[in-house]
Amino acid sequence: MNRDWIGSWDRLRVDWRASVGLVGTVVKYLAGAFLIPLAVALYYGEDVLTFIASLVFAIVVGVALERADPDPELGAREGFLMVALTWLVVAFVGMMPYLIAGIVGTESTLARPENALFESMSGFTTTGATVMGDISFDRHSHALLLWRQLTQWLGGMGIIVLAVAILPELSVGGAQLMDAEAPGPGIQKLTPRIAKTARVLWIAYLGFTLLEMVLLYGLHLLGLAPNMGLYNAVSHALTTLPTGGFSPEARSIEAFSAAVQWVIIPFMVVAGTNFALFWHCVTDGPKRLLNDTEFQAFTGIIAALTAIVAGQLFFGIGLQAIPVDGFSFSGKLEASVRHAAFQIVSIVTTTGYASMDFNTWSAPAKYVLLFGMFIGGSAGSTAGAIKVVRWVVVLKSLRKELFTTVHPAAVAPVRLNGNPLDERTIRGIYAFTLLYLVFFFVGVVLVIADAWRVGHYLSAFEAMSAVAATLGNVGPGFGSVGPMNSYLDFPLTSKLFMVFLMWIGRLEILPVLVLLTPAYWRT
Amino acid sequence: MNRDWIGSWDRLRVDWRASVGLVGTVVKYLAGAFLIPLAVALYYGEDVLTFIASLVFAIVVGVALERADPDPELGAREGFLMVALTWLVVAFVGMMPYLIAGIVGTESTLARPENALFESMSGFTTTGATVMGDISFDRHSHALLLWRQLTQWLGGMGIIVLAVAILPELSVGGAQLMDAEAPGPGIQKLTPRIAKTARVLWIAYLGFTLLEMVLLYGLHLLGLAPNMGLYNAVSHALTTLPTGGFSPEARSIEAFSAAVQWVIIPFMVVAGTNFALFWHCVTDGPKRLLNDTEFQAFTGIIAALTAIVAGQLFFGIGLQAIPVDGFSFSGKLEASVRHAAFQIVSIVTTTGYASMDFNTWSAPAKYVLLFGMFIGGSAGSTAGAIKVVRWVVVLKSLRKELFTTVHPAAVAPVRLNGNPLDERTIRGIYAFTLLYLVFFFVGVVLVIADAWRVGHYLSAFEAMSAVAATLGNVGPGFGSVGPMNSYLDFPLTSKLFMVFLMWIGRLEILPVLVLLTPAYWRT
Ligand SMILES: [K+]
Ligand SMILES: [K+]
Repeated sequence: MNRDWIGSWDRLRVDWRASVGLVGTVVKYLAGAFLIPLAVALYYGEDVLTFIASLVFAIVVGVALERADPDPELGAREGFLMVALTWLVVAFVGMMPYLIAGIVGTESTLARPENALFESMSGFTTTGATVMGDISFDRHSHALLLWRQLTQWLGGMGIIVLAVAILPELSVGGAQLMDAEAPGPGIQKLTPRIAKTARVLWIAYLGFTLLEMVLLYGLHLLGLAPNMGLYNAVSHALTTLPTGGFSPEARSIEAFSAAVQWVIIPFMVVAGTNFALFWHCVTDGPKRLLNDTEFQAFTGIIAALTAIVAGQLFFGIGLQAIPVDGFSFSGKLEASVRHAAFQIVSIVTTTGYASMDFNTWSAPAKYVLLFGMFIGGSAGSTAGAIKVVRWVVVLKSLRKELFTTVHPAAVAPVRLNGNPLDERTIRGIYAFTLLYLVFFFVGVVLVIADAWRVGHYLSAFEAMSAVAATLGNVGPGFGSVGPMNSYLDFPLTSKLFMVFLMWIGRLEILPVLVLLTPAYWRT
Repeated sequence: MNRDWIGSWDRLRVDWRASVGLVGTVVKYLAGAFLIPLAVALYYGEDVLTFIASLVFAIVVGVALERADPDPELGAREGFLMVALTWLVVAFVGMMPYLIAGIVGTESTLARPENALFESMSGFTTTGATVMGDISFDRHSHALLLWRQLTQWLGGMGIIVLAVAILPELSVGGAQLMDAEAPGPGIQKLTPRIAKTARVLWIAYLGFTLLEMVLLYGLHLLGLAPNMGLYNAVSHALTTLPTGGFSPEARSIEAFSAAVQWVIIPFMVVAGTNFALFWHCVTDGPKRLLNDTEFQAFTGIIAALTAIVAGQLFFGIGLQAIPVDGFSFSGKLEASVRHAAFQIVSIVTTTGYASMDFNTWSAPAKYVLLFGMFIGGSAGSTAGAIKVVRWVVVLKSLRKELFTTVHPAAVAPVRLNGNPLDERTIRGIYAFTLLYLVFFFVGVVLVIADAWRVGHYLSAFEAMSAVAATLGNVGPGFGSVGPMNSYLDFPLTSKLFMVFLMWIGRLEILPVLVLLTPAYWRT
């Protein structure tokens, strides 16, 4: 079986040409996306060559890849390969503006290819971890920073397709729990139906994005958000719905008024909710949303954790030290609740915005946030990490495990929204959750060892937050990777490893791991 | 169902009187164990009243508890309760010598009840974490320090019964994989068979203990271990086989010669091996031991991790700083291999001895050790933590998960030693492993928050090592809980929490959690 591995591509059982061909089509669409920053560059009178060059590059790559198979037909296997390749190739093509502008423009950390790749992968995976040393219009054009925001919004669209079309295919990991209309035996048979579902969810995605844009800009027009001009309103709406978290402001949402922070909170909650449920709201009313077990758990977790942190801040025990600006929350109810709610929602939904530097919080408050990084939003949303529905099933299953210990003969299936789950689904969810934690642990050790290699002592807490924030597509962590800092100081090897973590985490690990099994390729 | 909870003990479906009665019998046997330190105290001319008082106390408690049910008959449910109660009650009775000697004798940290309880629970759970501020004969009698060693040896005997009689009963957690002769439908039907199996394993346990004692004392007589007198030989043999790790020497096994360290290594490996396999060696030859999947994985892991750490030490990159005594291992092959092998075996088998202060090791080497704390020895040994067989099944199952993703129709059961495992066993193993990690994470957060509460900043690394070392019954951790330090500085609440972790970790979590379900008590 291994003997004739090399030179036997034609005997592979997976039609890799079809996958590559379809990736080419995606890259061609991506070329079209470069028109938006190009238009912005024209408006602001900024460098346009960067985007023209990127656009041409994308078309060339797209057309070249499409030639692998001009008329691709995808089965389930080709679907996995296509998804894994798409995020990789798109990240490489999407890094071009950073690289070109970094080399020909003002001096920038993004002139180094690994940094440009990191920033691009962080964008398309909606992670929001950054290696931009200095986020400002002095150093980067409006067009380039908008491109950075746009990568997240495009990544979010990709994730919706992923959740609708690819993950339900992979019954491992329990992704089939996504309450969409799509699950079925094979991709090619379902294409029209998937396309319809994806379109419906994209409409919701686009609609919420526009609504947030209008509300944010409306606050500005009402005088409640002086610096939330049109550029900022567009920029932040583009990174809220994909739970992205990039901001053209160096200090993230701290730069804006309390009103802005209050408006963004519900949109982050929406972004972390199963989009299919909104569609049900439109067609059947809100009952199904409100009765959904995952939605109840998701909002319940947010409320509980917010209450804990708000209490800490309000009673003055939530801060390790008074924050830089000399402001304390002790006894200030609105500010305590706002920052607690904002930060908990931002982390649990894996958005990664910051309404303040939560590095200044006390150890217990920070650990609540670290804990939150593993929860993730809902399945069928743009959120990353493990996801609420998996935790719900794990906890229900553990409870059942205890019950059947006492009653070995009892037959009591684990139910979700009233439907019994089969053993295979539950085992798949356990497997995913455990795999996620194993990747996390191994990742932490590798990142610490790599930092130690170059003489940098990285604390376990920093390393854990960095790995949880990249693997879970959260973005910022703590300490040197805090919300007001960056991932710039990591060695090259760690950056490439984190690019891998963002990639594999975004694709829910298993579709990538499957590609590493011989059975995928040969039998 | 909850309405008439109070005052309805008689309607409980579990015969708690039988469990309590049997715990009384165990405590009566424990009273007999006090005769050993009593004899030692007489020999050294030390305080005997401590042990006489403890003995009387144990008899009184034992007899009183036995009265609950003079002729107990145990079913499976009563078995869980009895096990959970046994370790609790024994820890409380076993703390008496510490408490009495601490109050009436030389000033000692053990005069405080929470410290005495911690030390006692650490002993009987074979954890080996200590809160003795100053381990020396200036402050503690030979008899008391021997009692401390003896608690671990007795705890190890208890664990063998647990592995043979109780855990196989609990098919959750995959404990039925223990290759003993015992698994079956109910405890009362199996008592004679269990008693026979336990007796066989106890003979192996006793035999290895005596062999180690003889070898250690032999080294002394040959002049290869100047300070390994009879007292030390007995003391260390008593804590190796139960993977205990207590030592009457403040600097653990660092206090002894290289020859002693080399002799202890294989005994730790034996202690971490499934004892039933040794019995098969006696009856059928070594074939079954050598072909056993778990044994192969266990020794393979030890060899691989030892090679990694020995390489680091040998090439001079394994030490953060030159250790206190000014000694470096760079280029010293024997010392590098010895310390790497000793420390890896000590941690992976959850023994917890130290051949040097591994706090001085580099970050990567220390993380290898922290990683090792989660592996644990084999099922059916006295080791704690998750255990090798569970990791083997988890990895095999994950591989199968990937395979069935590609081949949804394939029926390929996960096999262990050639035997197919059923879905329920695999799910049970996933559940246990995940539950263990959840307890770990939550434990780390609670310990850090509690330390923060009293104004002590505990690093994530220290806290992780402390929780992994108590929940996994390893003993020492890193930093302030390193092998040459102690758990003394934790606040009362953390100490009690760690007593809980040692207890629940030792009992493999589920038998205790079962007691917390209403179904256990009422239906
Ligand atoms: K994010
Ligand atoms: K131990």
